[in-house]
Amino acid sequence: NDITHEEALKIILEAKKEAEETDVLVNIAVVDAGANLKAFIRMDESFLGSIDVAIKKAKTARYFNIDTGKLGELTQPGGIIYNIEHSNGGLITFPGGIPIKNKEGKIIGAIGVSGGTIEQDRAIAITGAKAIID
Amino acid sequence: NDITHEEALKIILEAKKEAEETDVLVNIAVVDAGANLKAFIRMDESFLGSIDVAIKKAKTARYFNIDTGKLGELTQPGGIIYNIEHSNGGLITFPGGIPIKNKEGKIIGAIGVSGGTIEQDRAIAITGAKAIID
Amino acid sequence: NDITHEEALKIILEAKKEAEETDVLVNIAVVDAGANLKAFIRMDESFLGSIDVAIKKAKTARYFNIDTGKLGELTQPGGIIYNIEHSNGGLITFPGGIPIKNKEGKIIGAIGVSGGTIEQDRAIAITGAKAIID
Amino acid sequence: NDITHEEALKIILEAKKEAEETDVLVNIAVVDAGANLKAFIRMDESFLGSIDVAIKKAKTARYFNIDTGKLGELTQPGGIIYNIEHSNGGLITFPGGIPIKNKEGKIIGAIGVSGGTIEQDRAIAITGAKAIID
Repeated sequence: NDITHEEALKIILEAKKEAEETDVLVNIAVVDAGANLKAFIRMDESFLGSIDVAIKKAKTARYFNIDTGKLGELTQPGGIIYNIEHSNGGLITFPGGIPIKNKEGKIIGAIGVSGGTIEQDRAIAITGAKAIID
Repeated sequence: NDITHEEALKIILEAKKEAEETDVLVNIAVVDAGANLKAFIRMDESFLGSIDVAIKKAKTARYFNIDTGKLGELTQPGGIIYNIEHSNGGLITFPGGIPIKNKEGKIIGAIGVSGGTIEQDRAIAITGAKAIID
Repeated sequence: NDITHEEALKIILEAKKEAEETDVLVNIAVVDAGANLKAFIRMDESFLGSIDVAIKKAKTARYFNIDTGKLGELTQPGGIIYNIEHSNGGLITFPGGIPIKNKEGKIIGAIGVSGGTIEQDRAIAITGAKAIID
Repeated sequence: NDITHEEALKIILEAKKEAEETDVLVNIAVVDAGANLKAFIRMDESFLGSIDVAIKKAKTARYFNIDTGKLGELTQPGGIIYNIEHSNGGLITFPGGIPIKNKEGKIIGAIGVSGGTIEQDRAIAITGAKAIID
Protein backbone atom coordinates (compact mmCIF):
# COMPACT_ATOMS: atom_id res chain seq x y z
CA ASN A 1 0.00 0.00 0.00
CA ASP A 2 2.71 2.43 -0.97
CA ILE A 3 2.94 4.49 -4.12
CA THR A 4 5.39 3.16 -6.74
CA HIS A 5 7.90 5.33 -8.56
CA GLU A 6 6.09 4.67 -11.82
CA GLU A 7 2.86 5.97 -10.28
CA ALA A 8 4.66 8.97 -8.81
CA LEU A 9 6.18 9.74 -12.21
CA LYS A 10 2.80 9.46 -13.92
CA ILE A 11 1.29 11.83 -11.36
CA ILE A 12 4.08 14.36 -11.80
CA LEU A 13 3.75 14.28 -15.59
CA GLU A 14 -0.04 14.57 -15.59
CA ALA A 15 0.08 17.46 -13.13
CA LYS A 16 2.77 19.18 -15.22
CA LYS A 17 0.65 18.74 -18.37
CA GLU A 18 -2.33 20.32 -16.62
CA ALA A 19 -0.12 23.20 -15.47
CA GLU A 20 1.19 23.75 -18.99
CA GLU A 21 -2.28 23.69 -20.50
CA THR A 22 -3.51 26.27 -18.02
CA ASP A 23 -0.35 28.38 -18.24
CA VAL A 24 0.70 28.06 -14.60
CA LEU A 25 4.31 27.69 -13.48
CA VAL A 26 4.53 25.28 -10.57
CA ASN A 27 6.67 22.99 -8.47
CA ILE A 28 5.19 19.51 -8.02
CA ALA A 29 6.19 17.12 -5.23
CA VAL A 30 5.00 13.58 -4.50
CA VAL A 31 5.65 11.82 -1.18
CA ASP A 32 5.09 8.15 -0.39
CA ALA A 33 3.04 6.55 2.38
CA GLY A 34 5.84 7.33 4.85
CA ALA A 35 5.76 11.04 3.85
CA ASN A 36 9.20 10.68 2.25
CA LEU A 37 9.96 12.45 -1.06
CA LYS A 38 9.26 10.12 -3.99
CA ALA A 39 9.30 12.41 -7.05
CA PHE A 40 9.64 16.11 -7.81
CA ILE A 41 9.81 18.54 -10.68
CA ARG A 42 10.19 22.28 -10.85
CA MET A 43 8.97 23.99 -13.99
CA ASP A 44 11.24 26.59 -15.58
CA GLU A 45 10.65 30.12 -14.30
CA SER A 46 8.49 28.94 -11.40
CA PHE A 47 9.09 30.48 -7.97
CA LEU A 48 12.24 29.33 -6.19
CA GLY A 49 10.39 29.58 -2.89
CA SER A 50 7.85 27.07 -4.13
CA ILE A 51 10.29 24.16 -3.97
CA ASP A 52 9.98 23.95 -0.20
CA VAL A 53 6.30 24.92 -0.20
CA ALA A 54 5.40 22.14 -2.64
CA ILE A 55 7.31 19.54 -0.65
CA LYS A 56 5.81 20.74 2.66
CA LYS A 57 2.29 20.71 1.15
CA ALA A 58 2.74 17.09 0.10
CA LYS A 59 4.17 16.11 3.49
CA THR A 60 1.45 17.98 5.39
CA ALA A 61 -1.28 16.27 3.33
CA ARG A 62 0.15 12.86 4.24
CA TYR A 63 1.03 13.70 7.85
CA PHE A 64 -2.65 14.29 8.58
CA ASN A 65 -4.36 12.62 5.58
CA ILE A 66 -6.05 15.88 4.66
CA ASP A 67 -6.49 18.46 1.90
CA THR A 68 -4.12 21.15 3.17
CA GLY A 69 -6.80 23.77 2.49
CA LYS A 70 -9.10 22.12 5.01
CA LEU A 71 -6.30 22.11 7.56
CA GLY A 72 -6.05 25.87 7.03
CA GLU A 73 -9.62 26.35 8.21
CA LEU A 74 -8.72 24.77 11.55
CA THR A 75 -5.49 26.65 12.13
CA GLN A 76 -6.69 30.24 11.96
CA PRO A 77 -6.41 32.32 15.14
CA GLY A 78 -9.13 30.94 17.39
CA GLY A 79 -9.21 27.70 15.39
CA ILE A 80 -9.09 24.40 17.24
CA ILE A 81 -5.56 23.53 16.17
CA TYR A 82 -4.12 27.03 15.76
CA ASN A 83 -0.31 26.87 15.74
CA ILE A 84 -0.03 23.23 14.65
CA GLU A 85 1.99 24.62 11.73
CA HIS A 86 4.97 24.92 14.06
CA SER A 87 5.24 21.13 14.30
CA ASN A 88 7.02 18.71 11.98
CA GLY A 89 9.56 21.24 10.79
CA GLY A 90 6.85 23.54 9.47
CA LEU A 91 3.46 22.70 7.93
CA ILE A 92 1.72 24.40 5.01
CA THR A 93 -1.94 24.98 5.78
CA PHE A 94 -3.38 26.44 2.57
CA PRO A 95 -4.59 24.66 -0.59
CA GLY A 96 -2.34 22.68 -2.91
CA GLY A 97 -1.65 19.50 -0.92
CA ILE A 98 -3.85 16.45 -1.54
CA PRO A 99 -3.61 12.82 -0.34
CA ILE A 100 -3.15 10.28 -3.14
CA LYS A 101 -5.43 7.23 -2.98
CA ASN A 102 -5.26 3.97 -4.89
CA LYS A 103 -8.30 2.45 -6.61
CA GLU A 104 -9.40 0.84 -3.34
CA GLY A 105 -9.46 4.27 -1.65
CA LYS A 106 -6.39 3.60 0.53
CA ILE A 107 -4.05 6.56 0.99
CA ILE A 108 -0.67 5.66 -0.53
CA GLY A 109 1.05 9.06 -0.61
CA ALA A 110 0.35 12.72 -1.29
CA ILE A 111 0.97 15.45 -3.85
CA GLY A 112 1.91 19.08 -3.23
CA VAL A 113 1.75 21.85 -5.85
CA SER A 114 3.00 25.41 -5.45
CA GLY A 115 3.54 28.34 -7.79
CA GLY A 116 0.11 29.43 -9.01
CA THR A 117 -2.90 30.79 -7.13
CA ILE A 118 -4.11 28.48 -4.37
CA GLU A 119 -7.06 27.53 -6.58
CA GLN A 120 -4.74 26.68 -9.48
CA ASP A 121 -2.34 24.76 -7.22
CA ARG A 122 -5.21 22.73 -5.76
CA ALA A 123 -6.73 21.97 -9.16
CA ILE A 124 -3.39 20.77 -10.51
CA ALA A 125 -2.82 18.65 -7.38
CA ILE A 126 -6.23 17.01 -7.81
CA THR A 127 -5.54 16.29 -11.47
CA GLY A 128 -2.25 14.70 -10.49
CA ALA A 129 -3.71 12.61 -7.70
CA LYS A 130 -6.42 11.27 -10.04
CA ALA A 131 -3.94 10.25 -12.72
CA ILE A 132 -3.38 6.78 -11.27
CA ILE A 133 -7.06 6.02 -10.73
CA ASP A 134 -8.57 6.86 -14.11
CA ASN B 1 10.58 13.90 42.28
CA ASP B 2 10.93 12.58 38.76
CA ILE B 3 8.73 10.12 36.94
CA THR B 4 10.14 6.59 36.74
CA HIS B 5 10.19 4.52 33.58
CA GLU B 6 7.79 2.08 35.15
CA GLU B 7 5.36 4.91 35.83
CA ALA B 8 5.83 6.27 32.30
CA LEU B 9 5.15 2.83 30.87
CA LYS B 10 2.03 2.45 32.99
CA ILE B 11 0.78 5.83 31.80
CA ILE B 12 1.43 4.98 28.14
CA LEU B 13 -0.40 1.66 28.45
CA GLU B 14 -3.39 3.11 30.30
CA ALA B 15 -3.69 5.92 27.76
CA LYS B 16 -3.44 3.42 24.90
CA LYS B 17 -6.13 1.26 26.50
CA GLU B 18 -8.42 4.27 26.75
CA ALA B 19 -7.71 5.14 23.12
CA GLU B 20 -8.50 1.61 21.99
CA GLU B 21 -11.72 1.49 23.99
CA THR B 22 -12.89 4.77 22.47
CA ASP B 23 -11.67 3.87 18.96
CA VAL B 24 -9.18 6.70 18.59
CA LEU B 25 -5.79 6.31 16.88
CA VAL B 26 -3.19 8.32 18.75
CA ASN B 27 0.46 8.94 19.43
CA ILE B 28 1.29 9.12 23.14
CA ALA B 29 4.43 10.74 24.57
CA VAL B 30 5.61 11.05 28.18
CA VAL B 31 8.38 13.42 29.25
CA ASP B 32 10.12 13.53 32.61
CA ALA B 33 10.59 16.41 35.04
CA GLY B 34 13.41 17.69 32.80
CA ALA B 35 11.03 17.73 29.78
CA ASN B 36 13.08 14.96 28.16
CA LEU B 37 11.38 12.10 26.33
CA LYS B 38 10.76 9.21 28.71
CA ALA B 39 8.35 6.93 26.82
CA PHE B 40 6.45 6.96 23.56
CA ILE B 41 4.14 4.83 21.47
CA ARG B 42 2.50 5.36 18.10
CA MET B 43 -0.63 3.33 17.42
CA ASP B 44 -0.88 1.65 14.02
CA GLU B 45 -2.52 3.82 11.34
CA SER B 46 -2.39 6.96 13.50
CA PHE B 47 -1.28 10.18 11.79
CA LEU B 48 2.43 10.40 10.94
CA GLY B 49 2.31 14.11 11.76
CA SER B 50 1.16 13.32 15.29
CA ILE B 51 4.51 11.91 16.38
CA ASP B 52 5.99 15.36 16.63
CA VAL B 53 2.76 16.96 17.84
CA ALA B 54 2.42 14.47 20.73
CA ILE B 55 6.02 14.98 21.82
CA LYS B 56 5.69 18.76 21.57
CA LYS B 57 2.44 18.70 23.56
CA ALA B 58 4.13 16.81 26.37
CA LYS B 59 7.15 19.10 26.35
CA THR B 60 4.98 22.23 26.21
CA ALA B 61 2.90 21.01 29.17
CA ARG B 62 6.04 20.53 31.24
CA TYR B 63 7.88 23.64 30.01
CA PHE B 64 5.16 25.79 31.53
CA ASN B 65 3.40 23.33 33.88
CA ILE B 66 0.13 23.89 32.11
CA ASP B 67 -2.68 22.17 30.24
CA THR B 68 -1.71 23.00 26.65
CA GLY B 69 -5.31 23.99 25.94
CA LYS B 70 -5.09 26.76 28.51
CA LEU B 71 -1.88 27.97 26.93
CA GLY B 72 -3.80 28.32 23.68
CA GLU B 73 -6.09 30.91 25.22
CA LEU B 74 -3.11 33.13 25.98
CA THR B 75 -1.36 32.81 22.62
CA GLN B 76 -4.05 34.11 20.27
CA PRO B 77 -3.35 37.34 18.36
CA GLY B 78 -3.65 40.08 20.97
CA GLY B 79 -3.09 37.52 23.74
CA ILE B 80 -0.57 38.26 26.47
CA ILE B 81 1.98 35.72 25.30
CA TYR B 82 1.17 35.75 21.59
CA ASN B 83 3.99 34.07 19.60
CA ILE B 84 5.50 32.15 22.51
CA GLU B 85 4.95 29.13 20.24
CA HIS B 86 8.07 30.15 18.33
CA SER B 87 10.25 29.38 21.36
CA ASN B 88 11.74 26.06 22.39
CA GLY B 89 11.80 24.62 18.89
CA GLY B 90 8.04 25.05 18.55
CA LEU B 91 5.26 24.74 21.10
CA ILE B 92 1.82 23.19 20.68
CA THR B 93 -0.87 25.39 22.18
CA PHE B 94 -4.06 23.37 21.83
CA PRO B 95 -5.45 20.58 24.05
CA GLY B 96 -3.76 17.22 24.52
CA GLY B 97 -0.80 18.04 26.75
CA ILE B 98 -1.18 17.62 30.54
CA PRO B 99 1.31 17.80 33.43
CA ILE B 100 1.72 14.54 35.35
CA LYS B 101 1.60 14.83 39.14
CA ASN B 102 2.53 12.37 41.83
CA LYS B 103 0.26 11.57 44.79
CA GLU B 104 1.59 14.59 46.67
CA GLY B 105 0.57 16.89 43.80
CA LYS B 106 4.12 17.55 42.67
CA ILE B 107 4.62 17.77 38.90
CA ILE B 108 7.01 14.99 37.85
CA GLY B 109 6.55 15.02 34.08
CA ALA B 110 3.92 15.47 31.37
CA ILE B 111 1.94 13.54 28.78
CA GLY B 112 1.08 14.56 25.23
CA VAL B 113 -1.54 12.86 23.04
CA SER B 114 -2.24 13.54 19.36
CA GLY B 115 -4.32 11.87 16.67
CA GLY B 116 -7.97 12.27 17.68
CA THR B 117 -10.07 15.39 18.13
CA ILE B 118 -8.67 17.83 20.65
CA GLU B 119 -11.33 16.70 23.14
CA GLN B 120 -10.40 13.05 22.64
CA ASP B 121 -6.69 13.77 22.87
CA ARG B 122 -7.19 15.69 26.11
CA ALA B 123 -9.41 13.00 27.66
CA ILE B 124 -6.85 10.30 26.85
CA ALA B 125 -4.04 12.44 28.25
CA ILE B 126 -5.95 12.96 31.51
CA THR B 127 -6.64 9.23 31.81
CA GLY B 128 -2.96 8.55 31.29
CA ALA B 129 -1.79 11.14 33.81
CA LYS B 130 -4.15 9.73 36.45
CA ALA B 131 -2.93 6.18 36.01
CA ILE B 132 -0.17 6.50 38.58
CA ILE B 133 -2.32 8.17 41.22
CA ASP B 134 -5.35 5.90 41.38
CA ASN C 1 5.18 -5.15 6.00
CA ASP C 2 5.37 -2.59 8.74
CA ILE C 3 5.98 -3.19 12.42
CA THR C 4 2.88 -3.01 14.62
CA HIS C 5 2.73 -1.11 17.90
CA GLU C 6 2.26 -4.37 19.75
CA GLU C 7 5.43 -5.74 18.20
CA ALA C 8 7.29 -2.49 18.95
CA LEU C 9 6.12 -2.66 22.56
CA LYS C 10 7.21 -6.28 22.89
CA ILE C 11 10.64 -5.39 21.51
CA ILE C 12 11.04 -2.46 23.90
CA LEU C 13 10.07 -4.59 26.90
CA GLU C 14 12.34 -7.51 25.96
CA ALA C 15 15.27 -5.17 25.37
CA LYS C 16 14.61 -3.44 28.68
CA LYS C 17 14.47 -6.81 30.48
CA GLU C 18 17.83 -7.75 28.96
CA ALA C 19 19.27 -4.40 30.04
CA GLU C 20 18.01 -4.87 33.60
CA GLU C 21 19.38 -8.39 33.84
CA THR C 22 22.79 -7.23 32.68
CA ASP C 23 22.72 -4.08 34.79
CA VAL C 24 22.94 -1.58 31.94
CA LEU C 25 21.03 1.71 31.86
CA VAL C 26 19.83 2.42 28.35
CA ASN C 27 17.45 4.33 26.09
CA ILE C 28 15.62 2.13 23.61
CA ALA C 29 13.95 3.40 20.42
CA VAL C 30 12.00 1.54 17.75
CA VAL C 31 11.19 3.04 14.34
CA ASP C 32 8.80 1.67 11.73
CA ALA C 33 9.43 0.79 8.09
CA GLY C 34 9.25 4.50 7.23
CA ALA C 35 11.94 5.29 9.84
CA ASN C 36 9.36 7.11 11.96
CA LEU C 37 9.43 6.75 15.77
CA LYS C 38 7.13 3.93 16.84
CA ALA C 39 8.04 3.30 20.51
CA PHE C 40 10.58 4.54 23.02
CA ILE C 41 11.60 4.14 26.64
CA ARG C 42 14.32 5.73 28.72
CA MET C 43 15.44 3.83 31.78
CA ASP C 44 15.84 5.78 35.03
CA GLU C 45 19.32 7.22 35.53
CA SER C 46 20.37 6.50 31.94
CA PHE C 47 22.24 9.21 30.02
CA LEU C 48 20.15 12.17 28.89
CA GLY C 49 22.28 12.40 25.76
CA SER C 50 21.32 8.87 24.84
CA ILE C 51 17.73 9.82 23.98
CA ASP C 52 18.80 11.35 20.69
CA VAL C 53 21.54 8.78 20.10
CA ALA C 54 19.12 5.86 20.51
CA ILE C 55 16.59 7.42 18.13
CA LYS C 56 19.29 8.26 15.56
CA LYS C 57 20.73 4.73 15.79
CA ALA C 58 17.31 3.26 15.01
CA LYS C 59 16.74 5.69 12.14
CA THR C 60 20.22 5.12 10.72
CA ALA C 61 19.72 1.34 10.81
CA ARG C 62 16.52 1.67 8.80
CA TYR C 63 17.74 4.43 6.48
CA PHE C 64 20.40 2.08 5.12
CA ASN C 65 19.12 -1.35 6.30
CA ILE C 66 22.34 -1.96 8.16
CA ASP C 67 23.86 -2.72 11.56
CA THR C 68 25.09 0.76 12.50
CA GLY C 69 28.40 -0.75 13.58
CA LYS C 70 29.05 -1.97 10.04
CA LEU C 71 28.27 1.48 8.72
CA GLY C 72 30.96 2.78 11.04
CA GLU C 73 33.60 0.69 9.31
CA LEU C 74 32.83 2.47 6.04
CA THR C 75 32.75 6.00 7.41
CA GLN C 76 36.19 6.26 8.94
CA PRO C 77 38.60 8.79 7.43
CA GLY C 78 39.59 7.26 4.13
CA GLY C 79 36.50 5.01 4.15
CA ILE C 80 34.35 4.82 1.06
CA ILE C 81 31.47 6.80 2.52
CA TYR C 82 33.34 8.98 4.99
CA ASN C 83 31.18 11.96 5.99
CA ILE C 84 27.81 10.34 5.22
CA GLU C 85 27.01 11.02 8.87
CA HIS C 86 26.29 14.63 7.94
CA SER C 87 23.20 13.59 5.97
CA ASN C 88 19.68 12.99 7.21
CA GLY C 89 19.99 15.35 10.15
CA GLY C 90 22.89 13.38 11.59
CA LEU C 91 23.60 9.66 11.52
CA ILE C 92 25.07 7.46 14.24
CA THR C 93 27.71 5.13 12.86
CA PHE C 94 28.74 2.97 15.79
CA PRO C 95 27.08 -0.18 17.19
CA GLY C 96 23.61 -0.21 18.79
CA GLY C 97 21.27 0.14 15.79
CA ILE C 98 19.86 -3.01 14.17
CA PRO C 99 17.19 -3.55 11.49
CA ILE C 100 14.12 -5.46 12.70
CA LYS C 101 12.96 -8.29 10.44
CA ASN C 102 9.74 -10.27 10.48
CA LYS C 103 9.66 -14.07 10.30
CA GLU C 104 9.91 -13.94 6.51
CA GLY C 105 13.15 -11.94 6.75
CA LYS C 106 11.60 -8.68 5.49
CA ILE C 107 12.81 -5.52 7.23
CA ILE C 108 9.85 -3.89 8.99
CA GLY C 109 11.62 -1.34 11.20
CA ALA C 110 14.71 -0.90 13.36
CA ILE C 111 15.82 -0.66 16.99
CA GLY C 112 18.38 1.69 18.50
CA VAL C 113 19.92 1.29 21.97
CA SER C 114 22.21 3.76 23.74
CA GLY C 115 23.59 4.09 27.26
CA GLY C 116 25.94 1.17 27.81
CA THR C 117 29.15 0.21 26.07
CA ILE C 118 28.76 -0.26 22.32
CA GLU C 119 28.97 -4.03 22.83
CA GLN C 120 26.22 -3.89 25.47
CA ASP C 121 24.05 -1.60 23.37
CA ARG C 122 24.38 -3.89 20.36
CA ALA C 123 23.63 -7.04 22.37
CA ILE C 124 20.50 -5.46 23.82
CA ALA C 125 19.39 -4.26 20.38
CA ILE C 126 19.79 -7.76 18.95
CA THR C 127 17.81 -9.25 21.83
CA GLY C 128 15.06 -6.72 21.19
CA ALA C 129 14.97 -7.30 17.44
CA LYS C 130 14.70 -11.06 17.96
CA ALA C 131 11.79 -10.77 20.38
CA ILE C 132 9.16 -10.89 17.66
CA ILE C 133 10.67 -13.81 15.79
CA ASP C 134 11.20 -16.35 18.54
CA ASN D 1 22.57 28.86 -19.13
CA ASP D 2 20.32 26.97 -16.77
CA ILE D 3 19.03 23.44 -17.07
CA THR D 4 15.40 23.18 -18.23
CA HIS D 5 12.84 20.93 -16.61
CA GLU D 6 12.64 18.90 -19.81
CA GLU D 7 16.39 18.33 -19.67
CA ALA D 8 16.20 17.47 -15.96
CA LEU D 9 13.42 15.00 -16.65
CA LYS D 10 15.39 13.41 -19.48
CA ILE D 11 18.41 13.05 -17.20
CA ILE D 12 16.35 11.48 -14.43
CA LEU D 13 14.77 9.00 -16.81
CA GLU D 14 18.05 8.02 -18.48
CA ALA D 15 19.72 7.57 -15.11
CA LYS D 16 16.79 5.49 -13.89
CA LYS D 17 16.95 3.34 -17.03
CA GLU D 18 20.65 2.74 -16.44
CA ALA D 19 19.94 1.84 -12.80
CA GLU D 20 17.23 -0.62 -13.82
CA GLU D 21 19.42 -2.25 -16.45
CA THR D 22 22.22 -2.74 -13.94
CA ASP D 23 19.87 -3.81 -11.13
CA VAL D 24 20.69 -0.98 -8.71
CA LEU D 25 18.07 0.73 -6.54
CA VAL D 26 18.81 4.45 -6.34
CA ASN D 27 17.54 7.90 -5.58
CA ILE D 28 18.29 10.44 -8.31
CA ALA D 29 18.30 14.21 -7.82
CA VAL D 30 18.96 17.03 -10.29
CA VAL D 31 19.64 20.61 -9.21
CA ASP D 32 19.74 23.66 -11.46
CA ALA D 33 22.48 26.26 -11.92
CA GLY D 34 21.36 27.86 -8.65
CA ALA D 35 21.81 24.53 -6.81
CA ASN D 36 18.06 24.36 -6.25
CA LEU D 37 16.16 21.07 -6.59
CA LYS D 38 14.88 20.71 -10.16
CA ALA D 39 13.82 17.06 -10.42
CA PHE D 40 13.92 13.96 -8.24
CA ILE D 41 12.87 10.34 -8.20
CA ARG D 42 13.24 7.58 -5.64
CA MET D 43 13.09 4.02 -6.94
CA ASP D 44 10.93 1.56 -5.04
CA GLU D 45 12.77 -0.27 -2.25
CA SER D 46 15.80 2.02 -2.46
CA PHE D 47 17.29 3.24 0.85
CA LEU D 48 15.25 5.85 2.71
CA GLY D 49 18.48 7.51 3.80
CA SER D 50 19.48 8.02 0.18
CA ILE D 51 16.87 10.72 -0.45
CA ASP D 52 18.89 13.25 1.45
CA VAL D 53 22.24 11.85 0.30
CA ALA D 54 21.26 12.10 -3.39
CA ILE D 55 20.04 15.68 -3.02
CA LYS D 56 23.16 16.66 -1.05
CA LYS D 57 25.42 15.02 -3.65
CA ALA D 58 23.80 17.05 -6.43
CA LYS D 59 24.01 20.27 -4.41
CA THR D 60 27.62 19.61 -3.40
CA ALA D 61 28.61 18.97 -7.03
CA ARG D 62 27.12 22.31 -8.09
CA TYR D 63 28.24 24.28 -5.01
CA PHE D 64 31.87 23.63 -5.98
CA ASN D 65 31.51 22.50 -9.64
CA ILE D 66 33.20 19.22 -8.82
CA ASP D 67 32.82 15.48 -8.94
CA THR D 68 31.94 14.78 -5.29
CA GLY D 69 34.45 11.94 -5.26
CA LYS D 70 37.26 14.37 -5.97
CA LEU D 71 36.05 16.58 -3.15
CA GLY D 72 36.44 13.61 -0.85
CA GLU D 73 40.17 13.46 -1.51
CA LEU D 74 40.54 17.00 -0.20
CA THR D 75 38.42 16.62 2.92
CA GLN D 76 40.21 13.82 4.73
CA PRO D 77 41.86 14.60 8.07
CA GLY D 78 44.92 16.63 7.16
CA GLY D 79 43.39 17.54 3.79
CA ILE D 80 43.41 21.13 2.61
CA ILE D 81 39.68 21.66 3.11
CA TYR D 82 39.08 19.21 5.93
CA ASN D 83 35.69 19.87 7.56
CA ILE D 84 34.17 21.79 4.66
CA GLU D 85 31.42 19.16 4.88
CA HIS D 86 30.01 21.06 7.85
CA SER D 87 29.10 24.01 5.61
CA ASN D 88 25.95 24.49 3.56
CA GLY D 89 23.79 22.33 5.78
CA GLY D 90 26.03 19.30 5.19
CA LEU D 91 28.02 18.24 2.12
CA ILE D 92 28.51 14.75 0.74
CA THR D 93 32.11 14.12 -0.17
CA PHE D 94 32.13 10.69 -1.80
CA PRO D 95 31.29 9.67 -5.39
CA GLY D 96 27.83 10.02 -6.94
CA GLY D 97 27.54 13.78 -7.56
CA ILE D 98 28.48 15.15 -10.98
CA PRO D 99 28.12 18.61 -12.56
CA ILE D 100 25.85 18.70 -15.62
CA LYS D 101 27.22 20.56 -18.63
CA ASN D 102 25.51 21.71 -21.82
CA LYS D 103 26.94 21.06 -25.28
CA GLU D 104 29.16 24.13 -24.97
CA GLY D 105 30.71 22.77 -21.77
CA LYS D 106 29.01 25.28 -19.52
CA ILE D 107 27.86 23.91 -16.15
CA ILE D 108 24.06 24.26 -15.96
CA GLY D 109 23.27 22.08 -12.96
CA ALA D 110 24.27 18.85 -11.26
CA ILE D 111 23.06 15.30 -10.63
CA GLY D 112 23.31 13.25 -7.44
CA VAL D 113 22.75 9.50 -7.22
CA SER D 114 22.62 7.38 -4.04
CA GLY D 115 21.65 3.81 -3.23
CA GLY D 116 24.22 1.56 -4.91
CA THR D 117 27.94 1.23 -4.36
CA ILE D 118 29.86 4.46 -4.86
CA GLU D 119 31.09 3.14 -8.22
CA GLN D 120 27.54 2.31 -9.32
CA ASP D 121 26.20 5.65 -8.10
CA ARG D 122 28.90 7.53 -9.99
CA ALA D 123 28.40 5.56 -13.20
CA ILE D 124 24.65 6.21 -13.13
CA ALA D 125 25.24 9.91 -12.45
CA ILE D 126 27.59 10.16 -15.42
CA THR D 127 25.09 8.40 -17.67
CA GLY D 128 22.43 10.84 -16.54
CA ALA D 129 24.59 13.91 -17.00
CA LYS D 130 25.49 12.82 -20.54
CA ALA D 131 21.87 12.28 -21.57
CA ILE D 132 21.39 15.86 -22.76
CA ILE D 133 24.62 16.04 -24.71
CA ASP D 134 24.52 12.90 -26.85
